Amino acid sequence: MKRRVGQYLIDQISVYGVDKIFGVPGDFNLTFLDDIVSHDKVEWVGNTNELNGSYAADGYARMKGLGALVTTFGVGELSAVNGIAGSYAERVPVIAITGAPTTVVEQAGKYIHHSLGEGRFNDYRKMFEPITCGQVYLTKENAAVEIPRIIAKAVRFKRPVHIHMPIDVAMAEIEVDEAEVKPLITQDVTSYMTQVTERLEQSERPVLLVGHEINSFNLHSELEEFVNQTRIPVAQLSLGKGAFNEENPYYIGIYDGKFAHQQVNEYVDGSDCIINLGAKLTDSATGGFTYTFHLKDVIFMNDGEFRYRNTFDSDVSIRDLMNGLLTIDYRNESEFPTFSREGATDYVLNDEPLKQDNYFKLITDFLEKDDILLAEQGTSFFGAYDLPLYTGNKFIGQPLWGSIGYTLPALLGTQLADKERRNVLLIGDGSFQLTAQELSTMIRHQLKPVIFLINNDGYTVERLIHGEKEVYNDIQMWDYTALPATFGGKDHVITQKASTANELKKAMNAINDNKDKMHFVEVVMDIMDAPEKLEQISKAFAAQNK
Amino acid sequence: MKRRVGQYLIDQISVYGVDKIFGVPGDFNLTFLDDIVSHDKVEWVGNTNELNGSYAADGYARMKGLGALVTTFGVGELSAVNGIAGSYAERVPVIAITGAPTTVVEQAGKYIHHSLGEGRFNDYRKMFEPITCGQVYLTKENAAVEIPRIIAKAVRFKRPVHIHMPIDVAMAEIEVDEAEVKPLITQDVTSYMTQVTERLEQSERPVLLVGHEINSFNLHSELEEFVNQTRIPVAQLSLGKGAFNEENPYYIGIYDGKFAHQQVNEYVDGSDCIINLGAKLTDSATGGFTYTFHLKDVIFMNDGEFRYRNTFDSDVSIRDLMNGLLTIDYRNESEFPTFSREGATDYVLNDEPLKQDNYFKLITDFLEKDDILLAEQGTSFFGAYDLPLYTGNKFIGQPLWGSIGYTLPALLGTQLADKERRNVLLIGDGSFQLTAQELSTMIRHQLKPVIFLINNDGYTVERLIHGEKEVYNDIQMWDYTALPATFGGKDHVITQKASTANELKKAMNAINDNKDKMHFVEVVMDIMDAPEKLEQISKAFAAQNK
Repeated sequence: MKRRVGQYLIDQISVYGVDKIFGVPGDFNLTFLDDIVSHDKVEWVGNTNELNGSYAADGYARMKGLGALVTTFGVGELSAVNGIAGSYAERVPVIAITGAPTTVVEQAGKYIHHSLGEGRFNDYRKMFEPITCGQVYLTKENAAVEIPRIIAKAVRFKRPVHIHMPIDVAMAEIEVDEAEVKPLITQDVTSYMTQVTERLEQSERPVLLVGHEINSFNLHSELEEFVNQTRIPVAQLSLGKGAFNEENPYYIGIYDGKFAHQQVNEYVDGSDCIINLGAKLTDSATGGFTYTFHLKDVIFMNDGEFRYRNTFDSDVSIRDLMNGLLTIDYRNESEFPTFSREGATDYVLNDEPLKQDNYFKLITDFLEKDDILLAEQGTSFFGAYDLPLYTGNKFIGQPLWGSIGYTLPALLGTQLADKERRNVLLIGDGSFQLTAQELSTMIRHQLKPVIFLINNDGYTVERLIHGEKEVYNDIQMWDYTALPATFGGKDHVITQKASTANELKKAMNAINDNKDKMHFVEVVMDIMDAPEKLEQISKAFAAQNK
Repeated sequence: MKRRVGQYLIDQISVYGVDKIFGVPGDFNLTFLDDIVSHDKVEWVGNTNELNGSYAADGYARMKGLGALVTTFGVGELSAVNGIAGSYAERVPVIAITGAPTTVVEQAGKYIHHSLGEGRFNDYRKMFEPITCGQVYLTKENAAVEIPRIIAKAVRFKRPVHIHMPIDVAMAEIEVDEAEVKPLITQDVTSYMTQVTERLEQSERPVLLVGHEINSFNLHSELEEFVNQTRIPVAQLSLGKGAFNEENPYYIGIYDGKFAHQQVNEYVDGSDCIINLGAKLTDSATGGFTYTFHLKDVIFMNDGEFRYRNTFDSDVSIRDLMNGLLTIDYRNESEFPTFSREGATDYVLNDEPLKQDNYFKLITDFLEKDDILLAEQGTSFFGAYDLPLYTGNKFIGQPLWGSIGYTLPALLGTQLADKERRNVLLIGDGSFQLTAQELSTMIRHQLKPVIFLINNDGYTVERLIHGEKEVYNDIQMWDYTALPATFGGKDHVITQKASTANELKKAMNAINDNKDKMHFVEVVMDIMDAPEKLEQISKAFAAQNK
């Protein structure tokens, strides 16, 4: 059938279930935006700027399995670079589409706006090479082949790809087949599974250490099936919280090196068979590399990595490895630690200044079974990643990339992925200021997330690492609760302010009583008060920087 | 003498007159920030995010000749990429410094936060290659040589450079000489000047077409001396407004191809000797390439370009060319058009809805002799670039790079470069939303610029190009005048709103009566009303995208 290249690109993205496309208009993408607006399967979501757009597309992709972002040549795509790099690091597939000058303008090497003024048009694409798993330059001739190929690559590797699309190419009509999901090629992993089984059979205390790739590749049910089958206990990293059902009795807790609860730390560090499954042992996830096991003893099963003794396969997919595990004949006969969801009944209600410790207990109590919980790097993430989740919860943070300001626009994406589920964001003032304007897009779309903003007067995470009282860790004090109305949300957003546990509890009750509104709660806490885990990791980071 | 590498870097930057350093803290730069904060020649200015920081450093550099930005590894430096690329395109020297993980961490290839999680540390630096004129990786051993070299390179080429500084290197003590301005190497351009003189002597109607490099290289007085000496008429491009004193009688006006005033267009297109001096004939500066002269007849004298007939020198500096011009023995005996500053007495005061045409006349009248005028891409720039300036004015826009949102953070930089001169910003609502939070930094520093924000409900510049009524050109309506108070500026910022000429005039009078405050005026105009030049260029851009 005949489609314009731009239309076919949208067809092929929407085949994977994408129904929102994020971005910012610019004159090199406007006619392509017409094709988005008039497409029957997708909706255009304009962001306030491109970095925010990239974060929103990332948040959306974490929920739906794929996201898409449209920017303009140069100024647009380069503003999104940091967000795309974050998606690369944390394995989130985002299709980054640049509307570019026409082929004629490019071939003439014209000095046009948004270029570096030197007649070159290839510079920006090169800049995307280190942070995407594939790049294409679309032409009328290659589009029918390259569009499905590059999108399938993003989906296969759960990483962003970059598409450079001259605007005349976007408008060109080509002959294409119906868009379809490309089947994945599977690899035989039997020999690896034999090795894993042998090792497990010699082990008295095996453990699974799982992480973010389980989320990226959506392997939750396969993982849980494997665990129920084998009875191998599971610990998960903060980089990947949500990989495993925390209500499952085989779940032992979050492993973060020596900062972990004693039972988790002892079980993992004392295991005689650690299987690292879709997990990455980063500094922030391991208490600054404070694990005591030897990496050479670990069986690594990640995407693009089966590593055990003398075997190293850098092509294998984690999906094949996970499916391979489901075929092994093994059942752990050992005792395993049991774990059940901690209650949150131990929060304290009083009129004293609210402390972080009590704040997170109140948040635990507030959390409902189907909530999506987003936690911003800083006090919020380090306070939240150890909270017990229900089976139905989903948790989103960004501890590897760690770009402050990420979660607010990401919330736009996660909430648009499913408008009905309640999304709860925990964020601090320092981070909030970087990307605050995306709140206005949430108001524009009448979304109903719940936002808890910690106002503790600056970059507390940095203060803990270095420069407690230095001016560079200070920020301007905003009137945060006035912001939703300023962004046009007077009638749609209920704002509250809490400085004590009683006030916060009252605010939480008001939220639960008004589910048809967006909620924005400013939570005032002391400048140097922090969750215990943050204090610990800050010391580790400070030491790492010597 | 003994200095830490970080201290020496600051010494060497401050030698060029830099007294403010912009940026955002991160754990890989905190100890370096200590050295900035305690340095006696510079002050730290924290931005709300890194893109805004890069714009602020650019604005500062346009005033002071050099700017500096400090970010953290990965998340920080990549957020600044678009701003640095803009500085590259428009020839603004900014030192982009990244505080990076320690050499030990890097050599161990650790999976640390802000990395892509693959043990590589070279990716981001590579991404800066196309958008900087030099990059260095500092070590304890090379710092004493590389720091002065790379800064001198930025100053020589008026382009950004990138410095990757592991934080342990920043803290290392080294032996250095006193920081000093590196002398420039000059080139003999006598033979080129002979060719220029010969051509001028054969010409009956020579003209100088000047542009942004005159501003970047601060060659205003040399240019004016040359013009007064030779009596050659001068036209300037919008990309470079401010290059020539508009009160000089030899100034004929802005040349923008067929959109120019008739006398300017006829004089330039009819000239038998066009000297292009520090100017770039881009689409937005030439009415979409609507000049009718032949490029092969033009004498190009730009930085890195002397081009005339068979001579092409891609190394020559514009400073040497400008100084060479001052030595030639030539005086134009022809008549030349005269030009005097248009008055602005023809604005109309009434209670009708305000129109763009009248708005810019009122702005002309409002402008004082020493003001700095910043105009954002869109209605503001295309309305402002043809306004007559006084000798003492300075004009800042970004028509080649054209990144919307640029001017608000740039205003922070220009105003901090000289807190006493009045800075006047003209910006539209669509652009403002991208970088709005930098207003809070201006409030934090109690700066006193005057901001006119055009509220015309969306991206009017895009509507004119394509999609007049399309949803992608709509934005969320904000309560703009509430924003300064929300950002903590209740007592420092006077906000006003104007929808008619009478209201705007009243607001302007109030501004002039209260010079000790920051002023923020929301100017409401019709959604499709636009300056004539914007309507013309929009049509040219739409045609270029076919």
